[in-house]
Amino acid sequence: MTLTNTVCRLAARPVGLPKVSDWRISDEPAAAPADGEFLVQVEYLSVDPAMRTWMNAGRSYVPPVEIGEVMRAGAIGRVIESRHPDFATGDEVFGAFGVQRYAVSDGRDVTPVDTTLAPAPVHLGALGISGLTAYFGLLDVGRPQPGQTVVISGAAGSVGSIAGQIARIKGCRAVGIAGGEDKCRWLVEELGFDAAIDYKSGDLRSQLKTSAPEGIDVFFDNVGGATLEAALSRLARGARVVICGAISQYNASGELRGPANYMQLLVARASMTGFVIFDYADRYREAVVQLADWLRSGDLRSREQVVEGGIGDFPEVLLKLFRGDNTGKLILALAS
Amino acid sequence: MTLTNTVCRLAARPVGLPKVSDWRISDEPAAAPADGEFLVQVEYLSVDPAMRTWMNAGRSYVPPVEIGEVMRAGAIGRVIESRHPDFATGDEVFGAFGVQRYAVSDGRDVTPVDTTLAPAPVHLGALGISGLTAYFGLLDVGRPQPGQTVVISGAAGSVGSIAGQIARIKGCRAVGIAGGEDKCRWLVEELGFDAAIDYKSGDLRSQLKTSAPEGIDVFFDNVGGATLEAALSRLARGARVVICGAISQYNASGELRGPANYMQLLVARASMTGFVIFDYADRYREAVVQLADWLRSGDLRSREQVVEGGIGDFPEVLLKLFRGDNTGKLILALAS
Repeated sequence: MTLTNTVCRLAARPVGLPKVSDWRISDEPAAAPADGEFLVQVEYLSVDPAMRTWMNAGRSYVPPVEIGEVMRAGAIGRVIESRHPDFATGDEVFGAFGVQRYAVSDGRDVTPVDTTLAPAPVHLGALGISGLTAYFGLLDVGRPQPGQTVVISGAAGSVGSIAGQIARIKGCRAVGIAGGEDKCRWLVEELGFDAAIDYKSGDLRSQLKTSAPEGIDVFFDNVGGATLEAALSRLARGARVVICGAISQYNASGELRGPANYMQLLVARASMTGFVIFDYADRYREAVVQLADWLRSGDLRSREQVVEGGIGDFPEVLLKLFRGDNTGKLILALAS
Repeated sequence: MTLTNTVCRLAARPVGLPKVSDWRISDEPAAAPADGEFLVQVEYLSVDPAMRTWMNAGRSYVPPVEIGEVMRAGAIGRVIESRHPDFATGDEVFGAFGVQRYAVSDGRDVTPVDTTLAPAPVHLGALGISGLTAYFGLLDVGRPQPGQTVVISGAAGSVGSIAGQIARIKGCRAVGIAGGEDKCRWLVEELGFDAAIDYKSGDLRSQLKTSAPEGIDVFFDNVGGATLEAALSRLARGARVVICGAISQYNASGELRGPANYMQLLVARASMTGFVIFDYADRYREAVVQLADWLRSGDLRSREQVVEGGIGDFPEVLLKLFRGDNTGKLILALAS
């Protein structure tokens, strides 16, 4: 029996928001695993802002997805055929399987998913790359101290919502920036943020002044652009700005907007630091154990927005991120 | 006998380059020192890029010079009358005496100048704020390791020329960016920089690729704008960007140019950090002893460009900085 794979490939480099014509969806026979390989049936696709950056030409922290290649994606799936000694049929695994129904893997960078710990989608959220990014970005790069003010942009997103909760767990004042009343209410009432700012409801700088009156000690940025500038204007002495993402800029078709007031780093004796989560691979286990513990105790909540659909729905689901339509971790669950 | 003071006051907040009408030069009777004060005859005025930032409204790392106030300036002068127990007539002193011929001081933040160690102008250069800024900015904020590549913008300026020499002394590859062949030759042949890039002679990014082929480990920035962007595009993994100044932006009348490619901080896992030299006041002594030692051994050279003139010449001398007309520390020596 030959399985039919549905595959989403990059057809063109997008200018601005990705269009339908930037993708090519096709059905093709699934490859068979060779010796030392296994076949995965993909069940859950992680849908991430960074995907937009992988679609651009030029090496960033990872090489770009080339035209004609299967779109890169982290995913969880089940091993349905194995010729690999370490993976057995029935295993639930996480890996960069790509936007397709079936993937062949040699096991490199593939990790088991313990669904007794939490349902699979949580392993793409709080216990996945999102949770790890929030954990190391906030704690290692941001180095918040109890009592300090931590401001998070994109706070209702997969990484931001966890980063803010970790800040709160660590005894900081957690202030989230998000778009819309519903998200803000969720941050404060469900996740325990100390304050939430709806950037759509008024001037961000004056709202920051109200919500972070002593200034910002740690700014965890997922947004960039005007949001980053507003935060830079409110830094406390010695502040740390953590550069995690810049979703406001990923679809810019002209020149990107750099922070015009970056000299505030001098005024505030502050630093702005970038990081890439893969550098922490040898400490993932420490973080997952801690995050799972917080989930179990109820200190930490993971929220996944699971959209059911097929591979052909991926282009449209991706756009939700750039419209601000998602709350928590956005996942495409492939109907079986 | 009443002395006549010549004073340069800020008359208007400049838009772009300061114009003649932004200043008011006047003769007025010098104030007499009260009890606990002394009178200084100013001899050498330090002319610094940061002066332009002090002329803008709004608090930066120091309050702005208000309209009608004497223009702020670091200066060296001689005590000519004293009613202060710690300062005697004849003492040579450094302080923020302002752009004027005579200043009354209560001694706060005034330090003695040891002209047996080096002539007075050197105490505004390598042994003054410029040298201290280079020392702490490079060593404490930049943390260069032997063998690493340190790139300095504004390298022929007062701070940059010293920062580059310290990098070389510490066993780093020192690469300077400056405007014009003469400055570049001076950096390499006189100061021992490993390479110098004339930004006027061609594309800066490709010149950086040639002169820093392994990437930039420490970028010490005095310039900002396109220079900062070019350097960010060539950072080595884990690089430190030291934000010391942004002379290219100080006279911008529109919006400042932020680094559009600041996400390179993420790609390179790099940090960008601002600092203010005054924070290191309790360690000035350590630095001055070391800098004086390097001067004595010949490892470090201080160059001062001393322009002779009167207070009325200050506005024109200041503009030299923004035209790139100076090499080393720019000083206005007041004719006696």
